[in-house]
Amino acid sequence: MPSASKRERMLNQSRILIKGGKIVNEDCSIISDVYIEDGRIKEVGLNLQIPAGVTVIDATDKLVIPGGIDTHTHMELAFMGTKAVDDFHIGTKAALAGGTTMILDFVIPQRGTSLLEAYDRWRVTADAKVCCDYSLHVAVTWWSDKVKKEMETLAKEKGVNSFKMFMAYKDVFMLQDHELYAAFSQCKEIGAIAQVHAENGDLIAEGAKKMLSLGITGPEGHELCRPEEVEAEATQRAITIAHAVNCPLYVVHVMSKSAAKVVSNARRNGRVVFGEPIAAGLGTDGTHCWHKDWAHAAKFVMGPPLRPDPSTPGYLMDLLANDDLSVTGTDNCTFSVCQKALGKDDFTKIPNGVNGVEDRMSVIWEKGVHSGKMDENRFVAVTSSNAAKIFNFYPQKGKIAKGCDADVVIWDPEATRKISAATHHQAVDYNIFEGMECHGVPVVTISRGKVVYERGQLKTQPGQGRFVPRQPYAEFIYKRVNQREQVGQPSPVIRKPYDGEIIAI
Amino acid sequence: MPSASKRERMLNQSRILIKGGKIVNEDCSIISDVYIEDGRIKEVGLNLQIPAGVTVIDATDKLVIPGGIDTHTHMELAFMGTKAVDDFHIGTKAALAGGTTMILDFVIPQRGTSLLEAYDRWRVTADAKVCCDYSLHVAVTWWSDKVKKEMETLAKEKGVNSFKMFMAYKDVFMLQDHELYAAFSQCKEIGAIAQVHAENGDLIAEGAKKMLSLGITGPEGHELCRPEEVEAEATQRAITIAHAVNCPLYVVHVMSKSAAKVVSNARRNGRVVFGEPIAAGLGTDGTHCWHKDWAHAAKFVMGPPLRPDPSTPGYLMDLLANDDLSVTGTDNCTFSVCQKALGKDDFTKIPNGVNGVEDRMSVIWEKGVHSGKMDENRFVAVTSSNAAKIFNFYPQKGKIAKGCDADVVIWDPEATRKISAATHHQAVDYNIFEGMECHGVPVVTISRGKVVYERGQLKTQPGQGRFVPRQPYAEFIYKRVNQREQVGQPSPVIRKPYDGEIIAI
Amino acid sequence: MPSASKRERMLNQSRILIKGGKIVNEDCSIISDVYIEDGRIKEVGLNLQIPAGVTVIDATDKLVIPGGIDTHTHMELAFMGTKAVDDFHIGTKAALAGGTTMILDFVIPQRGTSLLEAYDRWRVTADAKVCCDYSLHVAVTWWSDKVKKEMETLAKEKGVNSFKMFMAYKDVFMLQDHELYAAFSQCKEIGAIAQVHAENGDLIAEGAKKMLSLGITGPEGHELCRPEEVEAEATQRAITIAHAVNCPLYVVHVMSKSAAKVVSNARRNGRVVFGEPIAAGLGTDGTHCWHKDWAHAAKFVMGPPLRPDPSTPGYLMDLLANDDLSVTGTDNCTFSVCQKALGKDDFTKIPNGVNGVEDRMSVIWEKGVHSGKMDENRFVAVTSSNAAKIFNFYPQKGKIAKGCDADVVIWDPEATRKISAATHHQAVDYNIFEGMECHGVPVVTISRGKVVYERGQLKTQPGQGRFVPRQPYAEFIYKRVNQREQVGQPSPVIRKPYDGEIIAI
Amino acid sequence: MPSASKRERMLNQSRILIKGGKIVNEDCSIISDVYIEDGRIKEVGLNLQIPAGVTVIDATDKLVIPGGIDTHTHMELAFMGTKAVDDFHIGTKAALAGGTTMILDFVIPQRGTSLLEAYDRWRVTADAKVCCDYSLHVAVTWWSDKVKKEMETLAKEKGVNSFKMFMAYKDVFMLQDHELYAAFSQCKEIGAIAQVHAENGDLIAEGAKKMLSLGITGPEGHELCRPEEVEAEATQRAITIAHAVNCPLYVVHVMSKSAAKVVSNARRNGRVVFGEPIAAGLGTDGTHCWHKDWAHAAKFVMGPPLRPDPSTPGYLMDLLANDDLSVTGTDNCTFSVCQKALGKDDFTKIPNGVNGVEDRMSVIWEKGVHSGKMDENRFVAVTSSNAAKIFNFYPQKGKIAKGCDADVVIWDPEATRKISAATHHQAVDYNIFEGMECHGVPVVTISRGKVVYERGQLKTQPGQGRFVPRQPYAEFIYKRVNQREQVGQPSPVIRKPYDGEIIAI
Repeated sequence: MPSASKRERMLNQSRILIKGGKIVNEDCSIISDVYIEDGRIKEVGLNLQIPAGVTVIDATDKLVIPGGIDTHTHMELAFMGTKAVDDFHIGTKAALAGGTTMILDFVIPQRGTSLLEAYDRWRVTADAKVCCDYSLHVAVTWWSDKVKKEMETLAKEKGVNSFKMFMAYKDVFMLQDHELYAAFSQCKEIGAIAQVHAENGDLIAEGAKKMLSLGITGPEGHELCRPEEVEAEATQRAITIAHAVNCPLYVVHVMSKSAAKVVSNARRNGRVVFGEPIAAGLGTDGTHCWHKDWAHAAKFVMGPPLRPDPSTPGYLMDLLANDDLSVTGTDNCTFSVCQKALGKDDFTKIPNGVNGVEDRMSVIWEKGVHSGKMDENRFVAVTSSNAAKIFNFYPQKGKIAKGCDADVVIWDPEATRKISAATHHQAVDYNIFEGMECHGVPVVTISRGKVVYERGQLKTQPGQGRFVPRQPYAEFIYKRVNQREQVGQPSPVIRKPYDGEIIAI
Repeated sequence: MPSASKRERMLNQSRILIKGGKIVNEDCSIISDVYIEDGRIKEVGLNLQIPAGVTVIDATDKLVIPGGIDTHTHMELAFMGTKAVDDFHIGTKAALAGGTTMILDFVIPQRGTSLLEAYDRWRVTADAKVCCDYSLHVAVTWWSDKVKKEMETLAKEKGVNSFKMFMAYKDVFMLQDHELYAAFSQCKEIGAIAQVHAENGDLIAEGAKKMLSLGITGPEGHELCRPEEVEAEATQRAITIAHAVNCPLYVVHVMSKSAAKVVSNARRNGRVVFGEPIAAGLGTDGTHCWHKDWAHAAKFVMGPPLRPDPSTPGYLMDLLANDDLSVTGTDNCTFSVCQKALGKDDFTKIPNGVNGVEDRMSVIWEKGVHSGKMDENRFVAVTSSNAAKIFNFYPQKGKIAKGCDADVVIWDPEATRKISAATHHQAVDYNIFEGMECHGVPVVTISRGKVVYERGQLKTQPGQGRFVPRQPYAEFIYKRVNQREQVGQPSPVIRKPYDGEIIAI
Repeated sequence: MPSASKRERMLNQSRILIKGGKIVNEDCSIISDVYIEDGRIKEVGLNLQIPAGVTVIDATDKLVIPGGIDTHTHMELAFMGTKAVDDFHIGTKAALAGGTTMILDFVIPQRGTSLLEAYDRWRVTADAKVCCDYSLHVAVTWWSDKVKKEMETLAKEKGVNSFKMFMAYKDVFMLQDHELYAAFSQCKEIGAIAQVHAENGDLIAEGAKKMLSLGITGPEGHELCRPEEVEAEATQRAITIAHAVNCPLYVVHVMSKSAAKVVSNARRNGRVVFGEPIAAGLGTDGTHCWHKDWAHAAKFVMGPPLRPDPSTPGYLMDLLANDDLSVTGTDNCTFSVCQKALGKDDFTKIPNGVNGVEDRMSVIWEKGVHSGKMDENRFVAVTSSNAAKIFNFYPQKGKIAKGCDADVVIWDPEATRKISAATHHQAVDYNIFEGMECHGVPVVTISRGKVVYERGQLKTQPGQGRFVPRQPYAEFIYKRVNQREQVGQPSPVIRKPYDGEIIAI
Repeated sequence: MPSASKRERMLNQSRILIKGGKIVNEDCSIISDVYIEDGRIKEVGLNLQIPAGVTVIDATDKLVIPGGIDTHTHMELAFMGTKAVDDFHIGTKAALAGGTTMILDFVIPQRGTSLLEAYDRWRVTADAKVCCDYSLHVAVTWWSDKVKKEMETLAKEKGVNSFKMFMAYKDVFMLQDHELYAAFSQCKEIGAIAQVHAENGDLIAEGAKKMLSLGITGPEGHELCRPEEVEAEATQRAITIAHAVNCPLYVVHVMSKSAAKVVSNARRNGRVVFGEPIAAGLGTDGTHCWHKDWAHAAKFVMGPPLRPDPSTPGYLMDLLANDDLSVTGTDNCTFSVCQKALGKDDFTKIPNGVNGVEDRMSVIWEKGVHSGKMDENRFVAVTSSNAAKIFNFYPQKGKIAKGCDADVVIWDPEATRKISAATHHQAVDYNIFEGMECHGVPVVTISRGKVVYERGQLKTQPGQGRFVPRQPYAEFIYKRVNQREQVGQPSPVIRKPYDGEIIAI
């Protein structure tokens, strides 16, 4: 039992008044105070009646925004013979330092193995370590009746409403078109959203062989064997298949202009599809893979690759600003240089993955808001609200309003910081944004109603976060899907039966 | 002085509890009660503490939505030798019956005359008659230093932050490109949004002559002399000019697929431009102008014309659903058949205009929501919230939340009604949506905290509405505009002066 | 041995002077005479020195055009349990009557069987029957080393430089992506052009099940189970795969606006890809499949389906006029009504196929030239010259010039005819263009230097035509392909070897 | 009278046999000999019967191509206070050295002055100096009945079938939209093609003021004040106006990706429009205008500007290869550095113009053919044949065939040369392609049947060339235009007269 004074401190800790800030939601911004109690936002307004002794944080001239939600991480993933160095503990600590208060990680079962067991294992691993709230997508890496059944169980009982299918990683995770059809059908059936890693795995496999045969073994070979049309093709195919079964679709890590164009054209045509650019794709580009220093080049290897066309990040940001793309993640999956070095003589052996979970918010602010492409409200939409809507925990998160979770960030839009591996909180020994000067700095991060980061100081402990279960049939996507199902079915032409001659066969 | 019982009734009237409905805002829907007092929404929530004696309205199984905002009307406009039959009284009554609680009408000064005087006259006319709140755009139909100065006065002192420029109506309202440049520059200077009627007036003038010379005098000639590329061209031009001065742009009545595509492409490229489709364009099409009955055909004559391509309405709705187009108006400007008949031998003399102010909400629900193209939240965005944001009175209107204006509609999404001139409340003697069966029916309309329409009964009186003044520099548009102004200016290359030979001339 | 007078006649027959016509080639038209001898064009010019006794044909006010080349027929094909009624004899007679003097038919071996044997059989069948010249594409319906080897033999020894791969007809002809990759690679290797039937076979299979489950058994189900995005998706995929191996691609029967757009966008991006619309797609549409009379509807069933969007034919013709699409065939594969009736209770059993080989020229003239979309020179390009270039027998055919084959048509651009099954020469008992009034009528057809059709009279006999062998590496396509191969290969970044730490695994 | 031996030499000079070369026409290439006599191609073939004593040129392993046609030059133009340094003599000599045997220059009358007089003056100037054939476009820089009448005279009597209208150069050459409409109508009426310089002159004028006000006085200001959307907008507008009067349109100097896209989209929609990229735009880019050395930057100033987006040239070449763009010119208008220096303190005073007439052929070969984007046949189409077709002197020029003008170039596709002002034949003292290594070198140039350039040696004299008059109604464009005029006119709906009430006014 805690001592009286500690209890007092804890209570105060859990009662916070943020004063004088500008509350930024996706729809508008207003100057207001925010009172937090017991992990929730208890009141938003001016001149609130507040009990004595609460912690007061002055947010004058600052923005008060919903904590960031990173839709796409791979903490401590075992991949390509090694294991990502940012685990759930370090990774979520870094997230908090950067203004992100929730991550969505992926359960990736091996081919032929149980989704449920993989899910359970990943829960055990994460629950003990996470410093912020989290939730889990589950990958469907093979297909069978059992897989189908387990998807239903995950949706009904385990809080999972999103399943990722790979169109790449041939012979490892890749599904065939008819399997995608079946998996998407099941997603639709159980009220989940289908996610795809959209690259043509057959072409990548052949392309890799070709590059090696041309003597191209360095990191540039990684992009050359999977140029952007390989991504765009798969994106188009996934959208076509999903539409055939009226299943909502979510394209993870949209990395190229052409794939992004496919997504946005589909949206114009009424498809229920969402595109997720990531911090890496918005903040840097693939020219680095042609760098003369092997280690430098290798750091930027991820799949789908960062593109060598330097106009890509600006283009993706324009589409993100315009709601052609919807949300942002990071695909944070960090391998240190000595791990990348596994592929020093063969790019196909370089572990794929980059950092991002810590810097996403600042990178998007700098490239999106400071540049004038989007405003602070759209910033909130793409860094938290839309994620919460699509994955069905809005307005629990992604909004500053009475009753919402107290995942809140006090953001200084004018301050700047320089990103560097020397100062970041992640475990990885480099940073792909090294040297980038960013406007937009998190001053205070509040997670679950507690200040966990304040002016450079982290105050977290493993296991402090909680798993956020998510219900199926997210209103944000399924209202339309269900309505179309009802009114959009084709019907037969009513005809008199044919009564003419029929050839004998 | 009212009697005690009347005062009581009035008080109760102004204290309303809407119980059990589903509150629909643009971001999400929740089951909640709404308590209204003194024209404002006082509280939203469950288990509210309500004083005794309030009027309680049961909204179970109904939606509670922000009252509709029609961004584009021309009540009692004198035009083409006659005057629109729906005046501010009848027009706004009809609006309320249809679930619309605010209109934005246009002040259109004659060439060479004062904008301020025209504004004052229109205020006097409208103030006395309106049954719901309203605001005013002002048209800039000529250019001079005086006009420029008056624009500033209107923005600073008269609550006008939107100015419409005509690219059509040659020799009447049309501005030249350099005048558009000047007018857009001034809009930018004073924090207003530039609006354009985008059609190439020179081509229309020539086209009309050509059609008449070919013996085409009927309503079909109206479209034939101004096909959709005439609209698309002007739209592109307006966007280009606006971008040159970093001025936000609003394209009124986007009527064609090609013009809509121009708007949406510009948005993808980061332009601050908004497109407004109207009820007519979303609910019907221009094939009617080829109808064998002259009177039928003439009813559908408006400019820019309804398009004969029957896939147009669905296309516009797809873009509206997808936020490529942003808000909806009606261009309600109604002339009865005997007025349309002024052009019985010459389509150029048919008064341009159609109805819509009453039916807009139902038409959009039917074609947009019932069809599954958009959900109820997007419906709210395009029928009210976005208008309020763009024209800078959000969240005063366009939202159901504590502190907002009590312009509220109880909407039955399952009920249907058949649109007909026989039953509508407008003065015009036909209805372009005649016979359309619509899902989505307003059950109760509350304007300024009072029930003004309930299950078929209107309870309004002229002058009940108020003018809504609007501040310049709407955050929704100017945050980006101003940021770009700051960070987006080009800078000179720093060079040593040229010191070589110069030719003598 | 023929009698002297018969020899004389035959000689005269083989010496023809066409006088006073307007010679139309793809590059321009000129008034000139054409002298034909021994199956070749011997001279083109005015005031030619001609031996006595030649047959003189007056072509004043007529066009003299290269005989049409139909790039896509399936004479007497055994398919879906029955056999196409137009065999090589009747089919080629009908072709000649319509102004077509060469067809390219398809050898379609069963899965698992020899391509060479199938080719030999088809040669034997055709050689004995054809009334005009012909050549053969060969389908690759499965994949193995043997298939690969036989492709090479066909290219080197058998005059085949085009191979068709099916992306549809799952479990029958369909290849997987990695098989397409292999087949395209082999095409590139041996200097052939890859052809694809571009529809997603997995989606069609699932779609058919779905339509039947919805009670849709009629011909409309055929289109509903394979809407145009199923075609567009596969087209995009084929182009992507072909580009990955730098293989030229030819998309047979482009039937939809969206697939055509995919082809033309790819061409803009520099892809070596050609699209082939067919007479059916250019002259009629898929609304017929919704006809109330089953037999009428069934006649129009083919794959990929004619599209219900009535703006499709005009759109395809615009692209054909503009060289976004390149050549025209017919996919002539005719089943009489009693054969179509095999699917009277289940659209999946309706034999797929329509007529076209006789009417293609007139349909394209009417819809393309008479409409003003293209001129007579482009007509020649899309009906013969481009086919001859792509399939590598230009200028042997497809051109009126000294030395070219005397496959010549005298064309009356002003005359009209009404298409009807009552008067056509094909064996099938209906005509999908029934009742179409066409400007543009073949008056005389000359094949291999002989008049075979003249003002309604056919003068042909089986076996009169010859197989046209085609060399690989067509200059029209391989000049670019080979140049890109030489200059377009990526090269490695030259780097110092990485000498840092490597993780142990 | 020439001496006997000189006569002999001249005769031999005018009888040339080119042996063993590969004749390249736009439709195909063949190995053949070419016999030239009296300025014409007398025969093409193998084993020709040739008189004794002719000059024999060995072309083994070389290409024999039609001489280049530069569609766009401004020799010795007086402009912006000075005069282009390449006059008709030096300019056409340089052209011949580069493989170009004909130029089309522009007559540009001052506002308010006679077109005919300007034409006559320019003829006198040019006739005396030209070393190769030439023809003239005439600019319409103002509008009046007299101008209209003179256009007709020029078309009927003076061999001019192309008229250029400026949408830029406000207050100097710029026409208003209604004047464009009138001028295009007249072009259509007299069978000419309308040409436009497509930039929005109002925006340029304002943009220039703005840049100067921002302190941007250097060459970069030239592009900044007229970014590519200013070009794209005007291009779209011109196409719209031209289509309204069914007038064929030719867009001179397409300089940007967005303008090129506008042209190619219009072509897809069936518009009769042609786009002309120029050597500068295909071979270099506008980044040079940001060069630190003022003189270097100023050399690249032309209007519309070279674009700073470095992917522009490749994009334009892709469209040129694909026939989205049709022909190539140079806009050769050369001012030496001391002339450019007139604008040393103000970019608006830098004389606009670049070189190109000499290097166009090599630049297009290098960037177009050597790169694999187009083949040698397309090269011929875009460097000569299409120009001859559009401007109506095909097949007189632009083709190697019996009867054509003997403007012939022997081209070595494998040889390379490095472009440099140090070695070029133009008068200007720099070269915008300085240092470019080009494959594709003219070895021999034959103009009007005489060898005028051979392995580095020019053999020309002023006045050797002739004016090429051009007839109106070019078949290549007017066959379609006229057919559309006939079949494409709208017709009125036949109706019973309206007999209802009419409002009194």
